[in-house]
Amino acid sequence: MNANASPKGKPDYVRPLDLRGGRVDMAHGAGGRAMAQLIREVFARGLDNEFLDGNDGARLPWPAPRAGARLVMSTDSHVVSPLFFPGGDIGCLAVHGTINDVAMMGAQPRYLAAGFILEEGFPLADLVRIVASMARAACDAGVPVVTGDTKVVEAGKADGVFITTTGVGDLAEGIDCAGANARAGDVVLLSGSIGEHGMAILSQRENLAFDSPIVSDTAALHGLVADLLAAVPDVRVLRDATRGGVATTLNEIAAQSGVGFHLDEAAIPVQPAVAAACEFLGFDPLYVANEGKLLAVCPPARAEAALAAMRTHPLGRDAARIGVAVADDRRFVQMTTRFGGRRIVDWLTGEQLPRIC
Amino acid sequence: MNANASPKGKPDYVRPLDLRGGRVDMAHGAGGRAMAQLIREVFARGLDNEFLDGNDGARLPWPAPRAGARLVMSTDSHVVSPLFFPGGDIGCLAVHGTINDVAMMGAQPRYLAAGFILEEGFPLADLVRIVASMARAACDAGVPVVTGDTKVVEAGKADGVFITTTGVGDLAEGIDCAGANARAGDVVLLSGSIGEHGMAILSQRENLAFDSPIVSDTAALHGLVADLLAAVPDVRVLRDATRGGVATTLNEIAAQSGVGFHLDEAAIPVQPAVAAACEFLGFDPLYVANEGKLLAVCPPARAEAALAAMRTHPLGRDAARIGVAVADDRRFVQMTTRFGGRRIVDWLTGEQLPRIC
Repeated sequence: MNANASPKGKPDYVRPLDLRGGRVDMAHGAGGRAMAQLIREVFARGLDNEFLDGNDGARLPWPAPRAGARLVMSTDSHVVSPLFFPGGDIGCLAVHGTINDVAMMGAQPRYLAAGFILEEGFPLADLVRIVASMARAACDAGVPVVTGDTKVVEAGKADGVFITTTGVGDLAEGIDCAGANARAGDVVLLSGSIGEHGMAILSQRENLAFDSPIVSDTAALHGLVADLLAAVPDVRVLRDATRGGVATTLNEIAAQSGVGFHLDEAAIPVQPAVAAACEFLGFDPLYVANEGKLLAVCPPARAEAALAAMRTHPLGRDAARIGVAVADDRRFVQMTTRFGGRRIVDWLTGEQLPRIC
Repeated sequence: MNANASPKGKPDYVRPLDLRGGRVDMAHGAGGRAMAQLIREVFARGLDNEFLDGNDGARLPWPAPRAGARLVMSTDSHVVSPLFFPGGDIGCLAVHGTINDVAMMGAQPRYLAAGFILEEGFPLADLVRIVASMARAACDAGVPVVTGDTKVVEAGKADGVFITTTGVGDLAEGIDCAGANARAGDVVLLSGSIGEHGMAILSQRENLAFDSPIVSDTAALHGLVADLLAAVPDVRVLRDATRGGVATTLNEIAAQSGVGFHLDEAAIPVQPAVAAACEFLGFDPLYVANEGKLLAVCPPARAEAALAAMRTHPLGRDAARIGVAVADDRRFVQMTTRFGGRRIVDWLTGEQLPRIC
């Protein structure tokens, strides 16, 4: 947060922003007094923490170094539409999404940075709501937003607000979670039911009313990962099943590791409302995005311990063993269906649900 | 860079992208096969380094810890228009801008992350050119882009490409550069001539042809900062004079530190072409953005040493002593003009030049 966010720097001759009826204008991105005010009254106030001190970046203590510890860094731009959806909004999603990407490397997320691209005319009240949601998500996760940036583009040159978050975390020695590590014989675990985020976005977008409303599963998974790795440090792959869903994520891992996967459809948890909506709308839940579910690939001897560790965490209560890695030079993901048949689960092709994160 | 960027993961049954005539489509952001291909053929190929391994983030060695060392983190979204301008483009600008923000904290920049928001229909050839420019800038600076993300929004919902870069650096013990550190009596140094970036953008945007073309000063300043801090570790404030120019940057420092500044207009270097263009178009170069110039505030006894250190670096050849900090509860920035008068140099008000970075 550049510009005078510090109390010392508060100029007292400026009217407060109209946070109820006001709108973003081009001056809010121009680097002058209006931008300083927006940063002070919306971002610094909402995200308040000791590191937001009005400089070009943040100076941060770093965990006491241990032999072999490494830094993990991940970034995600968020362009979800609509900005507000059942179970969340772009603000908490931008916090959860990047925390999860850092956690999927096996690391402990420590700090977040946030870059905002605002469209001229965007209601300040919506921005305040989004920033409050980010702040709550960051606080709940214990991972503060320590620095940021604001740009404004002309009306019609963006879509309300885009938020890019970047996370850093520290990775302990001995943890090695990466997409290329799966081996034939490994077990595939899934932390819970699939398809909720994508179907929540779709129902909001299309104004669909289902009997039971579908709520996004957006959540920060680093606590679940910490519990899992404490029990089973030799987890081989962790991946959150976001864009492209479980199907595409497993195809990525298959391609990176040079193995195939065999899944058991009956073992994959899907909430009845999601299953019904998917059937009605012609979606396969395996390809629908999640924002609070992870896939873990682990050595077969450790699978039960991993599953037990996941199930003791609130976000892994419904964790299930859904398949195994197999030797397959073609790197196919195959699935035994509920009816006992077998089918190929291919990569997502084309666009299924654009802008779900 | 999510998805199979690794050689192992290369599916061999996909046609290569048409990097000459092709365009970004919605599928390139959907998380499936098309996105994996874009990442592989454009981003991973362009930015090639050992850390881009197809995972959700990057695992990075961190410099051997020293007592008191801290992490610095900074982020900047780039929305410059036009995307290509004399002296640079959004790609190198996004690298330089974030390196500079990390450097202005007194830190050594180590790694960059990049989040791309692409507009459907954006020419792939332009994207390749931008990524190549980023890669060159990152390589020249010795600060690799280690992880990234790609999103695509519908035509008309963005403006070609927006790039958010985040940098991390390490900060040595004893270095304390921050906007709140200026004290009355301190000397203000400027690393070179001002106004080139903003006027280069403007001339390109308005299709103005000047006798001598104005070229953006976009550059990575971390080498200059390293030389400066090696000679004078007790520099109090470092700030690159981007949006709002030297005038607004000094007002920010004044507000944060609770001091005033007195500047000497005759001491502030401005290239004749920039001065002429500003006069012709009614701009004050003090408010025009720079992307390769810094302000340094240092104790008076160290000013000569600091100036000498800056002048020995190619990017500080024209460094000058341009003013002093003074005790002033009103925190005014004042300037003695070329004609011997004195005027207030206020914050930038409203928008002068939108979207210059």
